[in-house]
Amino acid sequence: MPRYSIGLDFGTESARAVVVDVRTGRVAAQVSHPYAHGVLDETLPGSRQKLPPDYALQHPADWIDSMAAACSAAVRDARASADDVIGVGVDFTSCTMLPAKGDGTPLCLLDDFQKVPLAWPKLWKHHGAKDATDRINHVARERNEPWLARYGGIIGLEWFFPKVLETLVEAPKIYEAADVWIEAGDWLVWQLINGPFPKCSAGKIIRSTCQAGYKAIWNARTGYPSPAFFAAAHPRMADVVTSKMPGTLAAPGQKAGGLSAEMAERLGLRAGTPVSAAIIDAHAGVPGAGVASPSTMVLVMGTSSCHMMNSRVEQLVPGVAGVVEDGILPGYFGYETGQASVGDAFAWLVETFGLSHEEMARRAAELPPGAGGVLALDWLNGCRTPLMDGRLSGAFVGLTLGTKPEQLYRALMEATAFGVRWIVDTLREAGVPVRRFVASGGLPAKSPLLMQIYSDVLNERIKLAESEQSVALGAAILGCLAAESKASGHASVSQAIHAMARQREDLVYRPDLSARRRYDQLYALYRTLAAGNGAVAATMRELRTLASRPLDQSPEPISPAAAGSGPHPEDEDDA
Amino acid sequence: MPRYSIGLDFGTESARAVVVDVRTGRVAAQVSHPYAHGVLDETLPGSRQKLPPDYALQHPADWIDSMAAACSAAVRDARASADDVIGVGVDFTSCTMLPAKGDGTPLCLLDDFQKVPLAWPKLWKHHGAKDATDRINHVARERNEPWLARYGGIIGLEWFFPKVLETLVEAPKIYEAADVWIEAGDWLVWQLINGPFPKCSAGKIIRSTCQAGYKAIWNARTGYPSPAFFAAAHPRMADVVTSKMPGTLAAPGQKAGGLSAEMAERLGLRAGTPVSAAIIDAHAGVPGAGVASPSTMVLVMGTSSCHMMNSRVEQLVPGVAGVVEDGILPGYFGYETGQASVGDAFAWLVETFGLSHEEMARRAAELPPGAGGVLALDWLNGCRTPLMDGRLSGAFVGLTLGTKPEQLYRALMEATAFGVRWIVDTLREAGVPVRRFVASGGLPAKSPLLMQIYSDVLNERIKLAESEQSVALGAAILGCLAAESKASGHASVSQAIHAMARQREDLVYRPDLSARRRYDQLYALYRTLAAGNGAVAATMRELRTLASRPLDQSPEPISPAAAGSGPHPEDEDDA
Repeated sequence: MPRYSIGLDFGTESARAVVVDVRTGRVAAQVSHPYAHGVLDETLPGSRQKLPPDYALQHPADWIDSMAAACSAAVRDARASADDVIGVGVDFTSCTMLPAKGDGTPLCLLDDFQKVPLAWPKLWKHHGAKDATDRINHVARERNEPWLARYGGIIGLEWFFPKVLETLVEAPKIYEAADVWIEAGDWLVWQLINGPFPKCSAGKIIRSTCQAGYKAIWNARTGYPSPAFFAAAHPRMADVVTSKMPGTLAAPGQKAGGLSAEMAERLGLRAGTPVSAAIIDAHAGVPGAGVASPSTMVLVMGTSSCHMMNSRVEQLVPGVAGVVEDGILPGYFGYETGQASVGDAFAWLVETFGLSHEEMARRAAELPPGAGGVLALDWLNGCRTPLMDGRLSGAFVGLTLGTKPEQLYRALMEATAFGVRWIVDTLREAGVPVRRFVASGGLPAKSPLLMQIYSDVLNERIKLAESEQSVALGAAILGCLAAESKASGHASVSQAIHAMARQREDLVYRPDLSARRRYDQLYALYRTLAAGNGAVAATMRELRTLASRPLDQSPEPISPAAAGSGPHPEDEDDA
Repeated sequence: MPRYSIGLDFGTESARAVVVDVRTGRVAAQVSHPYAHGVLDETLPGSRQKLPPDYALQHPADWIDSMAAACSAAVRDARASADDVIGVGVDFTSCTMLPAKGDGTPLCLLDDFQKVPLAWPKLWKHHGAKDATDRINHVARERNEPWLARYGGIIGLEWFFPKVLETLVEAPKIYEAADVWIEAGDWLVWQLINGPFPKCSAGKIIRSTCQAGYKAIWNARTGYPSPAFFAAAHPRMADVVTSKMPGTLAAPGQKAGGLSAEMAERLGLRAGTPVSAAIIDAHAGVPGAGVASPSTMVLVMGTSSCHMMNSRVEQLVPGVAGVVEDGILPGYFGYETGQASVGDAFAWLVETFGLSHEEMARRAAELPPGAGGVLALDWLNGCRTPLMDGRLSGAFVGLTLGTKPEQLYRALMEATAFGVRWIVDTLREAGVPVRRFVASGGLPAKSPLLMQIYSDVLNERIKLAESEQSVALGAAILGCLAAESKASGHASVSQAIHAMARQREDLVYRPDLSARRRYDQLYALYRTLAAGNGAVAATMRELRTLASRPLDQSPEPISPAAAGSGPHPEDEDDA
């Protein structure tokens, strides 16, 4: 009799359910279902009022509807009996978060609040919290908060408390009306084990140490930031943790509870089936790539990239977005690093100029390392690790009248590789060993050229995760871990991971000697251009500021004497 | 009875003849005729052997054939009697130059040499003389040659003596066989007054002070560089001036001689018609734009731009390519500055990505100053003034995932404007007044947006030359000056210029206050990025070096310990 675990994978546009054999990792079925409302970045449902440009919201009912449709269909496709499913794991984009009532109801679904944009769940890429982020960082630096170093010295625009503070400042009634501020992944788990809303109880909330640690400044030893800190950020925020963040923390793979009867029915599963605490989607890619050991970096490569690693070593690394104990797998310090645009950058070039990925990749592969003299900075969506600066932007240097589009395409590829090398160098220089590399996500299988460039630039072998759905597979592994050993047949986390996920043996990228020598030279140039305190970065920040400021706010020119161009009667005036 | 002057304008692809009424400047007729062989940059005529990539040669017979066809047709179209033509002026691309025999025959037309590429005329953009240029600059700096300061401290790759030395080193037999090394414009004037070859005599050569001063390191007071300098550059070059550069110098507008009978017949003109000493094409744009006074900068804007100005002041300005007494108009110091890619840069973007100039210009015009956050460096063909460095290249900074092609298009426009402002600032800071601006060439009439940007960035009014053929018109004005006052009816140079050329009165670009304030800020950023000793320029130079070096010549990596990626047996090896 087969035993299955189910991974529920919540992406930006859709939810996916995978039904996985816990002994072999074989995917018996997988179904993806799009969110009916997708990303709300133009208007709210039933409204014509334009949202501000930085907004990205979601509809919480979409999550449950898509999950139910995908999961029930996948169970059916797998011809699995509900009794054969031993656990459910959930991964979710993060920090996607929402305000809810104590009964689990999202505020945005209440008549009073449905027209208020900030009552809606904020998607991870909602960028409305710029001022709030600045405020939190400013106060944290002023108070010399000890936790700041764990996040490379800076709190991100997309994280939990900036989004809370944004609402408190811009829509205080929403802040007040919220009984619960919660990560969407935790809210989803709450619904699974205690819902659906409005039948939930705030006492049943299980929050993930992964989301809390990476996005909400939580730490196993010291907890959340102090009330004094929050009060300094905003007086009414002092008690945010005690009054608006009820719940118990649990690590990914720990059982949050059993499926409620009503949710079990919607999913086509058995009531009581163990549900794991949630995990951030990218982080699920670590077990999903078959990686249980420390010092192996998992490159989760897609539109953006997230590079994660477990380590025995705890080091606070400048520019590394988070070091969280038990953040990815129990027993290790989880390091999260990232690049804000990878596949997105290639897609930008191709779509902006009406090119073809296939044609560009074919021609780029014929170019030597260095893209024929063009060097790029890959920050088209800001720089995550190590500069943690969303105001930075992309650049091309080395253009000539003969420069071809494929040179830009390859230069962008090489720039993302230099970005990875910078991350690896940063970790190693801080004393965190990085020994092995496994790539997963959508890009590696699609782009052999990209993987060879990464191998050459890193001067390292790179293996590929066997599954192209390693994130959803990782969630299923967590579902398996949430079940009892008797049910799963696996005595340890490591055993479960190795049984259910692995790397391809038929394809290992190995560095080419002459290419990596050239890349050493090019990487040095990249680092010079990319210096956080350098002229290019300073220019990018100033360009961003100027572009966002209306013209008439420009200050007076410094040298008014140089201005003006009247006639010059002392000179012949024939021109 | 009308009186006409003829301007013969030798461009890169064709020769043009204009027939101009010397009293009014009215163009009675103009005819352009393409060179049969165009630019020889793939193979020599009758050969399949590929030329080196940096080569750009021309066929000297094309010049005479195209000139004769264009001129005779233009005279016919104008219904002008040969007796009504009072003078002929010649402008030519520069430094386009060739080796010839003493009878005027180009070496390349002799059986012995026709298969030798370096026997052929080198077009201005022939870039084969890189090593020779380095050698000349190195020796000049070592010897602290006094003339170096007149050229901003560096001799250009495209100039006369680098091209001579290239031939001496690479094809010494050609160097030896040459009786005469000569600018193409001077050779053409020689043919007009003494030819055609092989009927010429070396004693009849009249060299232009314009070409000699700007391209051959000649100065009215000190002449050419000394034999000791040439000997230091190459022992066999010591006597190059005395043994291989016969001729007398004359300023543009001075009479070189009268048309020979045979050439007069080919041109449809009268034997003995006065012919002016030649002028560089761009420089002819100064009188052709109706500018006779000092301190008025003439922006000759096309694929590249040349900004020229007469001044009462002689200052040696770092980075300014040449200050030549009587170099443009008699009685003034002529300053030549330039930008190596302007229209070429816009065309690169449009052609490389299959866009439309019209569409790009329309959309770019809707963007605010600053191109929505994108800043470019306009050096796609190197930086002429003030950095004088062909290894520099173009750049874009400020790219985001939302950046549109029209932002790059506008950013390139703005970058060329910042480049002009840099030139103007450089002159002013050195004590050379720049008071008025007149734009001519192909671009100004085509791109109102570009002209408004230039006006805003410079914070100056800009007038437009009335004629879109101001270079050819300038040559015709020189033809008029070569004639006697009695024939032309003009008592002075200034009177002739003002009678024959002027600026449009219906269109003056004036700076917009809010735009120029913003541009002050953006210009400061441009200057930071563009600093000749900055990180971006250094990166560009290194990229150029790396791109030209085969992979296997890369040096060993500095830190071999960091290389290699064997297994690490001390760690779990599950990835």
